[in-house]
Amino acid sequence: MIEKEVSASRTIMTQAVFPNDVNNNNTLYGGKLLDWIDMLGGIVAKKHSRSSVVTASIDSLNFLNPIGQRDIVTLEAWVNFVGRTSMEIEVRVTSENPFTTENSKNCRAFLTYVAMDEEGKPKEVPKLILSNKEEKERFEKAKERRAERLRRRDLTATEW
Amino acid sequence: MIEKEVSASRTIMTQAVFPNDVNNNNTLYGGKLLDWIDMLGGIVAKKHSRSSVVTASIDSLNFLNPIGQRDIVTLEAWVNFVGRTSMEIEVRVTSENPFTTENSKNCRAFLTYVAMDEEGKPKEVPKLILSNKEEKERFEKAKERRAERLRRRDLTATEW
Amino acid sequence: MIEKEVSASRTIMTQAVFPNDVNNNNTLYGGKLLDWIDMLGGIVAKKHSRSSVVTASIDSLNFLNPIGQRDIVTLEAWVNFVGRTSMEIEVRVTSENPFTTENSKNCRAFLTYVAMDEEGKPKEVPKLILSNKEEKERFEKAKERRAERLRRRDLTATEW
Amino acid sequence: MIEKEVSASRTIMTQAVFPNDVNNNNTLYGGKLLDWIDMLGGIVAKKHSRSSVVTASIDSLNFLNPIGQRDIVTLEAWVNFVGRTSMEIEVRVTSENPFTTENSKNCRAFLTYVAMDEEGKPKEVPKLILSNKEEKERFEKAKERRAERLRRRDLTATEW
Amino acid sequence: MIEKEVSASRTIMTQAVFPNDVNNNNTLYGGKLLDWIDMLGGIVAKKHSRSSVVTASIDSLNFLNPIGQRDIVTLEAWVNFVGRTSMEIEVRVTSENPFTTENSKNCRAFLTYVAMDEEGKPKEVPKLILSNKEEKERFEKAKERRAERLRRRDLTATEW
Amino acid sequence: MIEKEVSASRTIMTQAVFPNDVNNNNTLYGGKLLDWIDMLGGIVAKKHSRSSVVTASIDSLNFLNPIGQRDIVTLEAWVNFVGRTSMEIEVRVTSENPFTTENSKNCRAFLTYVAMDEEGKPKEVPKLILSNKEEKERFEKAKERRAERLRRRDLTATEW
Repeated sequence: MIEKEVSASRTIMTQAVFPNDVNNNNTLYGGKLLDWIDMLGGIVAKKHSRSSVVTASIDSLNFLNPIGQRDIVTLEAWVNFVGRTSMEIEVRVTSENPFTTENSKNCRAFLTYVAMDEEGKPKEVPKLILSNKEEKERFEKAKERRAERLRRRDLTATEW
Repeated sequence: MIEKEVSASRTIMTQAVFPNDVNNNNTLYGGKLLDWIDMLGGIVAKKHSRSSVVTASIDSLNFLNPIGQRDIVTLEAWVNFVGRTSMEIEVRVTSENPFTTENSKNCRAFLTYVAMDEEGKPKEVPKLILSNKEEKERFEKAKERRAERLRRRDLTATEW
Repeated sequence: MIEKEVSASRTIMTQAVFPNDVNNNNTLYGGKLLDWIDMLGGIVAKKHSRSSVVTASIDSLNFLNPIGQRDIVTLEAWVNFVGRTSMEIEVRVTSENPFTTENSKNCRAFLTYVAMDEEGKPKEVPKLILSNKEEKERFEKAKERRAERLRRRDLTATEW
Repeated sequence: MIEKEVSASRTIMTQAVFPNDVNNNNTLYGGKLLDWIDMLGGIVAKKHSRSSVVTASIDSLNFLNPIGQRDIVTLEAWVNFVGRTSMEIEVRVTSENPFTTENSKNCRAFLTYVAMDEEGKPKEVPKLILSNKEEKERFEKAKERRAERLRRRDLTATEW
Repeated sequence: MIEKEVSASRTIMTQAVFPNDVNNNNTLYGGKLLDWIDMLGGIVAKKHSRSSVVTASIDSLNFLNPIGQRDIVTLEAWVNFVGRTSMEIEVRVTSENPFTTENSKNCRAFLTYVAMDEEGKPKEVPKLILSNKEEKERFEKAKERRAERLRRRDLTATEW
Repeated sequence: MIEKEVSASRTIMTQAVFPNDVNNNNTLYGGKLLDWIDMLGGIVAKKHSRSSVVTASIDSLNFLNPIGQRDIVTLEAWVNFVGRTSMEIEVRVTSENPFTTENSKNCRAFLTYVAMDEEGKPKEVPKLILSNKEEKERFEKAKERRAERLRRRDLTATEW
């Protein structure tokens, strides 16, 4: 099983907010942003694993600032951590008002994807080559989130 | 400021999965499900607060089982907790294969919404009348999630 | 062939009107409402027949009141009548302004669906257990509409 | 108030069925066809009245034949009848398999639209010049449907 | 291989501009118009060739006048020229403000489609019967555009 | 009027092809690709001009290779040339099969946008700082295309 750099699957997605993307407050509808976040997260997970993937979880996600009706939205995503068959992808969303050039940080999300083989069964993914201090720190923090996540998943199942 | 029962804003949304809702695995696309979850959460928050709302956060969200291409999806949502201007809404997603009647639990989400007045400023929301033991327990657990959420929100801002 | 209660397939669908659902009068676009009505009617027909269905006809449908740009729409549907392979589903649409809590009755529709087997041929559907006076009256009225409908169908074919 | 010919507002709409227009039987989704029917009906009503319009009712509508996944759909519509502020528009839907050139008659619908002035109040529409025997017969039959429709509208309101 | 008249595949498509079709200037979004142009061009190409088609190129396309938020759009298209396996389709777009009846010429496009057999290989298309002077002139001009187009296609490939 | 570098507005957009983006050949629908191309071109034009823009023309556009049903699409765009109020934007489209990593060059487009002030009148745009030989060559070639384009625009108007 080959190893891969974080940079090999890092991806940027740019989107323009259109009138049919806004909610009744005339800001970007949250459901639309979630759609873009999951689409980009899936692209990065497919690029790293070279296989089909399913979204397994989305970590707690804060909407820091609303995105205006004419803003240009930039989403950037990369792999933080890989388990045997799963990957944690981080997506950061910033936006720019194209007229005033005002920027804002809007949202940061951690998504977990599982790679699947052709029969829909979990499949091993390449290990991650951590090239610098930042990538190593991210890997460690992602590991902690993962422990927390598994604990919560159990709670979800038992409490329902 | 009036008080309101949980049942006053509890809402059910039913959706059918159509060919243009699926991903490349022929299961419901995660981004579409997130769209429905945020739409329903917003409806409950508007019904409780009788005002415009913005999505402030989505707590860690697990996709327990994929939803099939012809399934009927039921989303049910209610208020767990209210702060001064914010509300925690719980959304539960189940699905049914209409042919086999096989059911599955698919997803459980906790979303936070903030009520807004006409100038877009946070606005007080009605307190919650807790009518039974279950609602009281949900209120307490939501309170804990809220503390955890605020702690994370700070982290998100400082670490970026 | 088993018999089934009306309540076994009765379904509620809630929808929020978004900016991309309105027409040029800023009220809910009729074509969008028809989409929701047919989607819900189809869900009820699938739940009763546990098979694929096709829409065979929609009875005369009155739009009593327009639905506003920020309204919450509730659609409720159930089986009124079953023939050998067809079902009449009634859909009622009400809406609520979430801010003023003003309600209105918007539309009432009678749709006919035919159950299909895997080769696309009409297939028998379960008989209906009529549990109370209201359900019995609805069954009788649906029977009259059916006679009228068949008469009209002939006219449509011959006059074209 | 000027008078206008039927031919002045007669309109043809062609649509291609795409993969995201089909239902789970791989035929054109009924909700999509209803969307096209109401869109075309509204165009004809706007052309005749030169004003905004609202859909008031749709008469009983039969789906005679399903429309295949790659078919080309032709919708044709014209005014059958005008009242003081309302218009009955007839829409006929045919489809063609572009490969075999096989044609079918799929659906025939009678829609009623009301013209509105800028304050949203009903507004007079031009009378209809009936140029031939066919147009006169259609006018008379539409008059009968109208009487039946008004009778039904009363029933809908009282029975609910 | 049969020959076919231009009129045999000539097609009209009417569309209404809806709030979710506009850009941030409240005029029809260019991407939406391009969607309609390519859909209609494809319909004409399928009707002429009675086969699947792929869009090979779009010639330089000028947007002469913006299309307003409530306009009715008419697209008309026909075959100008056929090669062995390719067809040049011309699409003309005009629009009308339904209230003022003001008309404008908005766009004129030349698209090239290639007919494909069931294995996805180029397939011969029927020759064109040129019935009048106008059709003959169009055929000649299309021939010139084709030479220019092939020259450009080579440039695109080499320069990239 | 300030001058700006090409790199200041250069933008990358990534998109995943989903089942509802394909045509009946199961490749990316041309109309969808055109939508993305125009959206990205508009983003670059807004970033360079810091104003609203309208699409004025699209130069002849070749579809070199079809884009598969599960491919990841990368669109990259930058300013080639600016006139007084117009900008030529080049968009290049490549795609990757995420499973085989096979790449292809799919499409190259030259779009012209005009900057507009708040009253919808053409507005001056910043001059372009040409930083290297490649940017200078692109500027010169764009100038030639512009002359050709203006000549064609006249033809379009007179011939119609």
